Amino acid sequence: MTVSYKKLSKDDATLLLVDHQSGLISLVQDFSPDDFKNNVLALADVGKFFELPTILTTSFDEGPNGPMVPEILNLFPNAPFIRRPGQINAWDNEEFVQAIKNTGRKQLIIAGVVTDVCVTFPALSAIEEGFDVFVVTDASGTFNTTVQQAAWQRMSAAGVQLMNWFSVACELHRDWRNDMEGLGTLLSNHLPNYRNLMTSYKMLQAAKK
Amino acid sequence: MTVSYKKLSKDDATLLLVDHQSGLISLVQDFSPDDFKNNVLALADVGKFFELPTILTTSFDEGPNGPMVPEILNLFPNAPFIRRPGQINAWDNEEFVQAIKNTGRKQLIIAGVVTDVCVTFPALSAIEEGFDVFVVTDASGTFNTTVQQAAWQRMSAAGVQLMNWFSVACELHRDWRNDMEGLGTLLSNHLPNYRNLMTSYKMLQAAKK
Amino acid sequence: MTVSYKKLSKDDATLLLVDHQSGLISLVQDFSPDDFKNNVLALADVGKFFELPTILTTSFDEGPNGPMVPEILNLFPNAPFIRRPGQINAWDNEEFVQAIKNTGRKQLIIAGVVTDVCVTFPALSAIEEGFDVFVVTDASGTFNTTVQQAAWQRMSAAGVQLMNWFSVACELHRDWRNDMEGLGTLLSNHLPNYRNLMTSYKMLQAAKK
Amino acid sequence: MTVSYKKLSKDDATLLLVDHQSGLISLVQDFSPDDFKNNVLALADVGKFFELPTILTTSFDEGPNGPMVPEILNLFPNAPFIRRPGQINAWDNEEFVQAIKNTGRKQLIIAGVVTDVCVTFPALSAIEEGFDVFVVTDASGTFNTTVQQAAWQRMSAAGVQLMNWFSVACELHRDWRNDMEGLGTLLSNHLPNYRNLMTSYKMLQAAKK
Amino acid sequence: MTVSYKKLSKDDATLLLVDHQSGLISLVQDFSPDDFKNNVLALADVGKFFELPTILTTSFDEGPNGPMVPEILNLFPNAPFIRRPGQINAWDNEEFVQAIKNTGRKQLIIAGVVTDVCVTFPALSAIEEGFDVFVVTDASGTFNTTVQQAAWQRMSAAGVQLMNWFSVACELHRDWRNDMEGLGTLLSNHLPNYRNLMTSYKMLQAAKK
Amino acid sequence: MTVSYKKLSKDDATLLLVDHQSGLISLVQDFSPDDFKNNVLALADVGKFFELPTILTTSFDEGPNGPMVPEILNLFPNAPFIRRPGQINAWDNEEFVQAIKNTGRKQLIIAGVVTDVCVTFPALSAIEEGFDVFVVTDASGTFNTTVQQAAWQRMSAAGVQLMNWFSVACELHRDWRNDMEGLGTLLSNHLPNYRNLMTSYKMLQAAKK
Amino acid sequence: MTVSYKKLSKDDATLLLVDHQSGLISLVQDFSPDDFKNNVLALADVGKFFELPTILTTSFDEGPNGPMVPEILNLFPNAPFIRRPGQINAWDNEEFVQAIKNTGRKQLIIAGVVTDVCVTFPALSAIEEGFDVFVVTDASGTFNTTVQQAAWQRMSAAGVQLMNWFSVACELHRDWRNDMEGLGTLLSNHLPNYRNLMTSYKMLQAAKK
Amino acid sequence: MTVSYKKLSKDDATLLLVDHQSGLISLVQDFSPDDFKNNVLALADVGKFFELPTILTTSFDEGPNGPMVPEILNLFPNAPFIRRPGQINAWDNEEFVQAIKNTGRKQLIIAGVVTDVCVTFPALSAIEEGFDVFVVTDASGTFNTTVQQAAWQRMSAAGVQLMNWFSVACELHRDWRNDMEGLGTLLSNHLPNYRNLMTSYKMLQAAKK
Repeated sequence: MTVSYKKLSKDDATLLLVDHQSGLISLVQDFSPDDFKNNVLALADVGKFFELPTILTTSFDEGPNGPMVPEILNLFPNAPFIRRPGQINAWDNEEFVQAIKNTGRKQLIIAGVVTDVCVTFPALSAIEEGFDVFVVTDASGTFNTTVQQAAWQRMSAAGVQLMNWFSVACELHRDWRNDMEGLGTLLSNHLPNYRNLMTSYKMLQAAKK
Repeated sequence: MTVSYKKLSKDDATLLLVDHQSGLISLVQDFSPDDFKNNVLALADVGKFFELPTILTTSFDEGPNGPMVPEILNLFPNAPFIRRPGQINAWDNEEFVQAIKNTGRKQLIIAGVVTDVCVTFPALSAIEEGFDVFVVTDASGTFNTTVQQAAWQRMSAAGVQLMNWFSVACELHRDWRNDMEGLGTLLSNHLPNYRNLMTSYKMLQAAKK
Repeated sequence: MTVSYKKLSKDDATLLLVDHQSGLISLVQDFSPDDFKNNVLALADVGKFFELPTILTTSFDEGPNGPMVPEILNLFPNAPFIRRPGQINAWDNEEFVQAIKNTGRKQLIIAGVVTDVCVTFPALSAIEEGFDVFVVTDASGTFNTTVQQAAWQRMSAAGVQLMNWFSVACELHRDWRNDMEGLGTLLSNHLPNYRNLMTSYKMLQAAKK
Repeated sequence: MTVSYKKLSKDDATLLLVDHQSGLISLVQDFSPDDFKNNVLALADVGKFFELPTILTTSFDEGPNGPMVPEILNLFPNAPFIRRPGQINAWDNEEFVQAIKNTGRKQLIIAGVVTDVCVTFPALSAIEEGFDVFVVTDASGTFNTTVQQAAWQRMSAAGVQLMNWFSVACELHRDWRNDMEGLGTLLSNHLPNYRNLMTSYKMLQAAKK
Repeated sequence: MTVSYKKLSKDDATLLLVDHQSGLISLVQDFSPDDFKNNVLALADVGKFFELPTILTTSFDEGPNGPMVPEILNLFPNAPFIRRPGQINAWDNEEFVQAIKNTGRKQLIIAGVVTDVCVTFPALSAIEEGFDVFVVTDASGTFNTTVQQAAWQRMSAAGVQLMNWFSVACELHRDWRNDMEGLGTLLSNHLPNYRNLMTSYKMLQAAKK
Repeated sequence: MTVSYKKLSKDDATLLLVDHQSGLISLVQDFSPDDFKNNVLALADVGKFFELPTILTTSFDEGPNGPMVPEILNLFPNAPFIRRPGQINAWDNEEFVQAIKNTGRKQLIIAGVVTDVCVTFPALSAIEEGFDVFVVTDASGTFNTTVQQAAWQRMSAAGVQLMNWFSVACELHRDWRNDMEGLGTLLSNHLPNYRNLMTSYKMLQAAKK
Repeated sequence: MTVSYKKLSKDDATLLLVDHQSGLISLVQDFSPDDFKNNVLALADVGKFFELPTILTTSFDEGPNGPMVPEILNLFPNAPFIRRPGQINAWDNEEFVQAIKNTGRKQLIIAGVVTDVCVTFPALSAIEEGFDVFVVTDASGTFNTTVQQAAWQRMSAAGVQLMNWFSVACELHRDWRNDMEGLGTLLSNHLPNYRNLMTSYKMLQAAKK
Repeated sequence: MTVSYKKLSKDDATLLLVDHQSGLISLVQDFSPDDFKNNVLALADVGKFFELPTILTTSFDEGPNGPMVPEILNLFPNAPFIRRPGQINAWDNEEFVQAIKNTGRKQLIIAGVVTDVCVTFPALSAIEEGFDVFVVTDASGTFNTTVQQAAWQRMSAAGVQLMNWFSVACELHRDWRNDMEGLGTLLSNHLPNYRNLMTSYKMLQAAKK
């Protein structure tokens, strides 16, 4: 039996960043703060690098949940930014769904806080409407690993593809030759050990001359 | 292919609390006692808050298994409370199944002790009879994480949705505007870090005036 | 959609203990030795208690793999005991498969060492021939948890039910009233915390008089 | 060689709660939020129960660090409460040290957030001035376990006694007969498994009559 | 600088088993129940094997703490057994200290539940009175590893030697030739992997003949 | 319902070693370096032992990614070795796919670095083209276990069989009698505890004579 | 007994960054790469902020160990930078020791790669010569946590103070009022959760106006 | 106060390998088998490389404990090899102690199985007789990490220096220039990631030409 491999395409993917708000992020305990910050910003840089249509949304951002983290806002000044008045599942907000449909794309890359609610609910809703859904597991955080695992299992059982920001970047890029310099910089900025490899390499290259 | 997202509805869900007994809980080692107590009481509060029909059951509660923990009993003084004379799978008890059918609802939210028996058995039985089953992973406990993971995998493979109490609350609530104060209080009582966000927020609001 | 809940029945189940040999057990590192010994003996006691047809098999038991552990042999002196001359997958041994077919039963409870080979191979073979297979995860051991998890996932994807010895005992027993004393003793012998509950209970009962 | 066992005495101990502020607590990642909340409130209840002189202090509580959590403030309405204007080490604040000296006591029980700074600094300072210092490890939190372990080792090497709230309570109480009911209630409120033991016990006692 | 190696001697050691009660043991979460049961019984067997004077004590054993586990009582029917009326630190009970002094020995091997109170308090008290104290870490249990580690560090800093039941047995035995059969049996009963080694060995020895 | 057990056959399997390069391996953190080195070389030895057609490939091996590790190159001097000029997914390289098709075999055993990209992408592509895919989980490495688990779940959901090098070896070998000496040597070289069993066994055999 | 609290002073401390080289860092496995990068750069920023005399050293930086990571070099363009020709213990290099003595300071803050060699050796040597040594545990990395813990214990036993970069910053700063803005920025740049608190706080402050 | 840094010297150190026997090693569970094998052989290679006097000893090596692993025996064909007839503490064997004294050296590097007995006992005995003792933590193994930690703490408190094989090698070597090629080969053989660094480096060096 052959199955169809749903491969991310930079021409058919939209990036959804859901509720990465300063208050809500303080609830995340399944990643170290350094790791999580790096993963979220790496994913945002991926969206920028591949010029993906990107949609931002927050929930109650004037209350204790806090505002969208400024690094993301600054990176996407012209992105649709839906500040939801009350809907917990972003998919229940018509403006949000309309913004997605306006892109005309069928692949949704979703990350958010917290995984079991702000990511899982719209992911399941989007599957139901026929989208292909790719959840970025390491740019989504929640209360603890027990909750994380249960949410992953629920989404996976529904057909969601679980990925990480690095494999998203690689699947979108396809071939290093498309922009060797650009991808190298992206990886170097967000993979400390890859940066180290490049540092050693450059020193040796320089020594050659 | 589109699948159907089984979304919890406060008008179609019933809460089943199975064998949260003082003796049996001492067998639970996959959560810290503080976490487990909080998760179970949070789920009970969720049932109360959304006025879900709630059904309680115990197994041999006059013997070493001990009585249902009093906090739960006190919260649901009028709930059907089936003290099973011997059936291990609560679904083998006709009175219990009848109480469920009396609600006329098709969605079952189940939590209990221990996960691999008191939760898994009725969950699989209910699926077989056509109910939609949502197991609350963090309000259900067992001997160790090896057993926990095997039980989750068995249930997930059978079509059970694995959730946690927080995502149950959010999926039932749908929209903050339905009762902003109420949901805020619920979260504040059972998510210490959310309470902290609210404490900081209120101080700053007060300072404004 | 309703699925069929394959429920263990003491009238249709056969117990297979595969390669619990003194040498091979020293390769097990995903359980503490005390836990593993207790789990294996508990499962053997379950087989005895429910009078399940039980089949033992070893691989190269005169070489470094060592003999079947004597506690198991002593418990089942009359069980078919197939000392395989070379086949790694016990299912490739005709005598072993014939012994299973002689029972006329369709449910196979399998445990063994190591999980990824001695359990997974016959489990997948048995599924292919139409048996219902229940693997006892905590009475099966292997090199480390990475290997354990991959083996579980392979079996689960093929339709194997993952259980633990305690849930096997409970699903076979169905109702405490079938033999309250017997099940209580079984649990007390293999669940130290349950034994403690019974000790406290008995003291208080005695004090009553 | 015999050493002197510095035993906590309810007549010679003072309780210092340092910087348990709503913002700072969100930095704590070496305990689950439920565990940490319970431990801190348990220690506060211990102070109340034994009527220990208790001193509260905060750092910058009008800024992002947030206010002292209200549960603590409400428990000690008349306690000296030093809101430090800038000193990181509370011991550098004269008012704080004076409040301690006013008690005329030589044993200091310290807990706070974060362990490596707000606890370690005053603990080392107090040792230097001849106090006996008992740090409550499980009511003090910090960024991760690496930092926690380094801080513990630094304090232990300097002569600090590392304890937990439960052993503080027991060492202060000395003998159950001093107030059996009171200690039982304290433990029941903060040790879920002890509460379960008492629930089972009371049921059996009641059944006796 | 040379220090003095305090070596356990079967002619100068006394074994103290403190509060291994059926209720209190249910509070232990830093060992799996199987491991803990095995470790405690192994230590008791060590006391028996070397005919060490052994003293048992319990705290409130008619209440929720439960009775001393029967396996220990049965092993030492003639040992002094002090049921303390209220003292938390067993050393505050004169009868207990007198029983120790009656042995005329200076080395105390202590294990108990919970580590941070029932073990730590008498260990520190005994050190202060000039005894050499050896705490058996793996036959003593408590709420979680955070508490365990703090208690160990407190005792170690005071001069307590931290050991495990196996090293206690070996240090008391000194030379296999003192009773090869006896020690072999002891290890085989409580070290499953050692039993496996012996099983393989015996099979090969038997095959030789 | 019976499913088809896809069993590895030494006559139908091809081994693909993808991007085990000296630089990329420094990114692997989900295995200890010793374990990972052993697992990769064990898998390579399995390919050699069963004379599987083996195909090697690297990505950018003149840059910071580094060259294929020499142990692998030396083991397969005549294997097709495709140094990809840019394609991230090896399946996007026609030469690589052609080399696979040249073998005329339908079972692909894949391992590589990193799991989520260099293994997952060709595994999913191969499934889509009708190959049976067996990923060797413990000879494939990546950034951390979060990423590892998400990648496994994505592949498993697509029909990939997750195995480990030891179960690959056993499933290919089928029967010890096919080459007892050969398999024994293979295991002894890569399973230290199995080597120990053989050492003990041989000593006792020698002693017999 | 009162001991002397060796408190870090910005007027008496020197910062030593030892062998943070691009190749050697790839050996570090006791921290996630993101955490480690952040910790090292945070410590470097601490040195800059407090204008501590800072000394850099590398070992074989033209070979596989790789060059000092450029972020550090760029931050301290005028710092003494000793590229050791062969000495493993930096203290065996006279130029390095002379640079330290030139500062006229007695407190050494040391971090490096790997902890057990490049940090431990000079730390022990410095203690021996009468310096006060503070090792920054979370800006020093090594092969695994077993090695980490053994190295910490060796240094702690010799009188080294184990700290983390955050407590170093706080102990040097003493009082927020010394430079509130500066310390706030430092923490915000290296503690993601602290940045979040400040983000929320600023939004609320802004809303006030 | 300045303390004396006991630095290992290749002219004053003796290596003791205690009870690395094929049976006993199967009891080791605090290291993965691959890690442990590598660590032990690395330490043996260190002894060889620095031509340290090396003394081997076993306990009951004709019984279930099994023979010394052959790799060690082959490496030191002329080393004193004391097969103890019964003494558990090797220091109780006069021949063993005499062999040590014959070396005329005062520094003992000890590793063995199991840590808490075969290493701890002679380490404490040697300290008492005035030797400087360096225990190699990662070439010594035992039942679990709880036992490991207690044994380390007992030895550390008695003055034993806890090291790992890598820091032993570095402290003995002092300066790379003593034998750059030799040390490089040693590290490359036992540190897979260091080998990778060298592989990349050599490729780039070769490319230069």
